[in-house]
Amino acid sequence: MKKVILDLATTLDGFIEGPNGEIDWCIMDDDMDFDGFLSNIDTIFYGRVSYDAWGNYQPDDNATPEEQNLWKAVHSKNKFVFSSQNREDENAVFINTDLPTKVSEIKNQEGKDIWLYGGASLIKTFIQHNLIDVYRVSVHPIALGDGKPLFEDLKERLPLKLIKTNVFKSGVVQLIYEPVK
Amino acid sequence: MKKVILDLATTLDGFIEGPNGEIDWCIMDDDMDFDGFLSNIDTIFYGRVSYDAWGNYQPDDNATPEEQNLWKAVHSKNKFVFSSQNREDENAVFINTDLPTKVSEIKNQEGKDIWLYGGASLIKTFIQHNLIDVYRVSVHPIALGDGKPLFEDLKERLPLKLIKTNVFKSGVVQLIYEPVK
Repeated sequence: MKKVILDLATTLDGFIEGPNGEIDWCIMDDDMDFDGFLSNIDTIFYGRVSYDAWGNYQPDDNATPEEQNLWKAVHSKNKFVFSSQNREDENAVFINTDLPTKVSEIKNQEGKDIWLYGGASLIKTFIQHNLIDVYRVSVHPIALGDGKPLFEDLKERLPLKLIKTNVFKSGVVQLIYEPVK
Repeated sequence: MKKVILDLATTLDGFIEGPNGEIDWCIMDDDMDFDGFLSNIDTIFYGRVSYDAWGNYQPDDNATPEEQNLWKAVHSKNKFVFSSQNREDENAVFINTDLPTKVSEIKNQEGKDIWLYGGASLIKTFIQHNLIDVYRVSVHPIALGDGKPLFEDLKERLPLKLIKTNVFKSGVVQLIYEPVK
């Protein structure tokens, strides 16, 4: 069965953005092997706002070849957008009813894993329905003191089982967990 | 020079306590070698509230020998209490003026390192005066969604340099940083 993988960058004090949306502290190390991550997924789940911001993003001509290739890889995936809007788009399938059943159907298809891209509201819904199989959290070597929290409005505690850690040369530590079921 | 070491347990989402002060998620693994940590310090810094709660704590007779020994080790250290109160105590030296100078004097003494025990207000003051040399943060495999944040009222970002990581069998990951100076 395909796994739903959440991949997030957080500060040591648990913020995914600064108080004004800052993500300039976020490091993309070349030893992080994000390409490897992308090569193991064939599907991306977006919330509507995230999809509109990033779902069809094209880097400009000045972007590095690595960045161009990264976005090419992203845009080669099957995309699903979870939205209350009834929309159509040639690059994505929009889902606006019965999220848990639709997600189960997609997970049961053959193929590689699924990247749960976000945003926060979609992640919250996935946590509440216990639909995330892997949490990959990259803890960055900084504290901000304030900002947008890693998980918003958790209804209950989320106990996790540590599966793996990866330490990158920048000082980012990636913690990979499965939920305790 | 003696180093000031902050040692804290946090959840994955950056809380040191639950919304009602819960710390029942906090794991004390026997492979964490807290004894080793204690053997490398000879001094403890307390805030007044923390000192009154824990500075002279005695485990009851039912406590395990390990716990008895741990508290014996804690109470063998030189203790300093930073307080606005002008108090005396046979077990600790109270400091109520000019914290940065007094801390510098203590750091310049011969001996082992210093454990900055807390609480939150004292930690905040130490961060603001750039007096912490080592941050040891033990990330526990749980998210709470709400609670008491790791660092309160940071005036500015706190960039850190990762020195070491320790992974414990419980899934706790200890991240050890120095401040970027």
